[in-house]
Amino acid sequence: MDLGKVEDFELIFYPNSVAVIGASQNKKKMGSIYIQCLLAAGFTGRLYAVGAKGGKSWGLPIYRNLRAIPEPIDYVIVAIPKKFILDLLDDCAAKGVKVVQIFSAGFSESGSDEGRRLEEELTRKARNLGLRIIGPNCVGVYCPESGMHLPRPMPRQQGTGSVAFICQSGGHTANFAEAGLARGINFSKVVSFGNGCDLDSIDFLEYFAVDPKTEIIGAYLEGVKDGPRFVKVIKEVAKTKPVIVWKGGSTEAGAETASSHTAAIASSDAIWAAALKQAGAIKVGSLEELADATLAFQYLPRVEGNRVAIIAGIGGAGGGACVAACDACLSKGLEVPPLAQETRARLKAILPPDGSIFRNPVDVGAVALFRGLKYLFQPMELTVKDPGIDVLIIDTPISQLIGPLSEQGFDAVLDTFIALSKAQAKPLVVVSSPLLREAEWSAMRRKLAQAQIPVYSTFDRAAKAIAHVVQYWKFRAEIDEEAA
Amino acid sequence: MDLGKVEDFELIFYPNSVAVIGASQNKKKMGSIYIQCLLAAGFTGRLYAVGAKGGKSWGLPIYRNLRAIPEPIDYVIVAIPKKFILDLLDDCAAKGVKVVQIFSAGFSESGSDEGRRLEEELTRKARNLGLRIIGPNCVGVYCPESGMHLPRPMPRQQGTGSVAFICQSGGHTANFAEAGLARGINFSKVVSFGNGCDLDSIDFLEYFAVDPKTEIIGAYLEGVKDGPRFVKVIKEVAKTKPVIVWKGGSTEAGAETASSHTAAIASSDAIWAAALKQAGAIKVGSLEELADATLAFQYLPRVEGNRVAIIAGIGGAGGGACVAACDACLSKGLEVPPLAQETRARLKAILPPDGSIFRNPVDVGAVALFRGLKYLFQPMELTVKDPGIDVLIIDTPISQLIGPLSEQGFDAVLDTFIALSKAQAKPLVVVSSPLLREAEWSAMRRKLAQAQIPVYSTFDRAAKAIAHVVQYWKFRAEIDEEAA
Repeated sequence: MDLGKVEDFELIFYPNSVAVIGASQNKKKMGSIYIQCLLAAGFTGRLYAVGAKGGKSWGLPIYRNLRAIPEPIDYVIVAIPKKFILDLLDDCAAKGVKVVQIFSAGFSESGSDEGRRLEEELTRKARNLGLRIIGPNCVGVYCPESGMHLPRPMPRQQGTGSVAFICQSGGHTANFAEAGLARGINFSKVVSFGNGCDLDSIDFLEYFAVDPKTEIIGAYLEGVKDGPRFVKVIKEVAKTKPVIVWKGGSTEAGAETASSHTAAIASSDAIWAAALKQAGAIKVGSLEELADATLAFQYLPRVEGNRVAIIAGIGGAGGGACVAACDACLSKGLEVPPLAQETRARLKAILPPDGSIFRNPVDVGAVALFRGLKYLFQPMELTVKDPGIDVLIIDTPISQLIGPLSEQGFDAVLDTFIALSKAQAKPLVVVSSPLLREAEWSAMRRKLAQAQIPVYSTFDRAAKAIAHVVQYWKFRAEIDEEAA
Repeated sequence: MDLGKVEDFELIFYPNSVAVIGASQNKKKMGSIYIQCLLAAGFTGRLYAVGAKGGKSWGLPIYRNLRAIPEPIDYVIVAIPKKFILDLLDDCAAKGVKVVQIFSAGFSESGSDEGRRLEEELTRKARNLGLRIIGPNCVGVYCPESGMHLPRPMPRQQGTGSVAFICQSGGHTANFAEAGLARGINFSKVVSFGNGCDLDSIDFLEYFAVDPKTEIIGAYLEGVKDGPRFVKVIKEVAKTKPVIVWKGGSTEAGAETASSHTAAIASSDAIWAAALKQAGAIKVGSLEELADATLAFQYLPRVEGNRVAIIAGIGGAGGGACVAACDACLSKGLEVPPLAQETRARLKAILPPDGSIFRNPVDVGAVALFRGLKYLFQPMELTVKDPGIDVLIIDTPISQLIGPLSEQGFDAVLDTFIALSKAQAKPLVVVSSPLLREAEWSAMRRKLAQAQIPVYSTFDRAAKAIAHVVQYWKFRAEIDEEAA
């Protein structure tokens, strides 16, 4: 397969036929898990099981070898011991296979000469046979639209998403897909490429750059083979789509571990940081930060600046939250400027004088509890519409609201946020701890998602996510200026 | 009241009689909320309601004024507008009241001359009458043992705890108490002192230092009146009990907000950091970090050093987690040293060669899924018993274990951890994301709490908490050395 064209690449995510090598009646075998997951995801192509012992499972025959399948195969998922794989490639070529995805490990990441040699031989043989490889040592592809799936049972994503994720680690791939879905991230495509002996991060980056389904690109990388080219590609991609990169192995011991994990070659974290920044990419340091940033890019419109307003005290006792929110924002490079004199004067006319704070942060002094929700809408609207403000963070302490607000209902608070989001154009972000109120938190998250309002569990995480979005749109503004 | 002796202070947390001023048949009024919470907490003393409109509620008469109560009162909780409070103090003196806790706001934190003057007058009058004040602008005292309670409904703590918490913010007080209980923190006593016009952080710090029920002290502060004395007291206290301090208003805008919140006077964050470090206190930067550190001190035994071992891959695909855990530990000042040659050789004899990592982190290559749990105990025991290791972190991905382990059950994995904890003396820490598996996560947290194993949701949070404990025991070792 050439992969010169987008259509070639589409075969990876929308294959017509897939064969899983290593399936068996034992449902715990990795090949069996792949088949179960593909079936559960409603894979839209034709699916074949291949396993040395034959038999039948899931209503499918298990073919004893690939060649026994009575039609050509586009895509093969390999989960058998490494020693059988070189011979399998001949079968693949005979069946017209285009892409071989290899779960099996024990290649260059083992650090042994034998593993390295085997990987070299695999790569060479695949090239000679015209086969493309994803892996080895990877969990492969996830595409909610086609039903291509990772070997982990997960809830089904509703509809098609706009987030692509490129990942060197199988565990992080599945964890990010699973956690992302639970957080409201909607994926276009996900790919885990492990040791990346053939297709690697740059190939997928280039494809996602032109994939019309993808608007945001996340990546977990432990190393890249061609650093300068990688940076050049990111710089091009970032002009139209945000690229968020989590670099694993940023410490010395982490880098040594990465080399045992995916045979990644270390380079200093400072070099990565500088290169990514210059290329306009967003650098994050953990799975949570990656999810937080992705969510912000998915939900928020273009952000014009870094000036944040904060609303706290909806349920009373908001002073501590005001201080904490301020500290969180400033420590992430955001500003929390005082509101305009006029805004403050108008706030003072609405809010109770004792127990409120008017500077920004604004402590609304339990106004929703004591005076009703329309008195909450007004100060929030005044605050976000202040000409010196770019983003509004709303502290929403569920446990302080749910009991006392039983009459109007907590949902009415959320309706107020949604109304505010519709009444003006600036982005809103909600901060709320899920602790003790997990069910209400999840319901809130889902409801606010409809209005493009992301929910974060702490001020620190919200502030960091907003700062990433601010950084990206600043880069875009500079690019646009250069071009003008 | 003198407060020179511990017994005097005990009256604050174990009063014989409490009157709440500002109670009414309207259950939304703050005074009414206090009474409901005290009743729900099973307050062990005698409780009286006082409100201008009189009447009856909760089966209690509402006295029209304090003097009408037919017995002496130890402790008064005040939730009426500020303008009535000076006169109330005369009633308090007449009834033999020792301590007046004031929820009402609008004093020095308002920034107005009137508010400042009123607070000065309040303080002077209370001193002349021999009354001690907690507040104003505070939510007061929580003591699970006596049923003294904050004005927020919360689940009841089982038994007496060892954690005291001193807090300048009412919101943070209630949030930390509520979140702490949910995380498994058990409190001895909690106090919110707001503007601290009389009793303040140093007073409570000195009391908790000698309180036999308290072993760990947490604090949220926005400012202190006598910095040098504060540092001196902490240095003395830290010799026997860990003191964890979250300083709010660490940024310029945060400090300005703090002054509107509790009239705190700002001093630079760098000065705080240096002073706290020198005094042997642990400095944290958020509610979550405070809870994480407190939990670590509550559960973990004395830690001898900063050398961490990491186990991942129980459910397979642990390589990415190994890298992430390594990066998290090193970035927090912990070490992840390679295991001894002998340990590594013995691990290699047990673990599958392909897909495992032996360096430390140790990726056990899904050994629990494929070979059974006794093969999990062995590598964990070898790793933690390595002479170069002080602490073991175990990555426990619930969603990767719960389905595949249906035969043995996920509980059997936790039993393995508990058995390991009993089989040797070094501390164990579990990292596990609650996302998608909140119910199982909570059950796990409770079960492991019995064996003194804390659970953190991310590597970053676990590593930070461990680093705090390491720092404290290093300080203690230096103190012990000086003394020897």
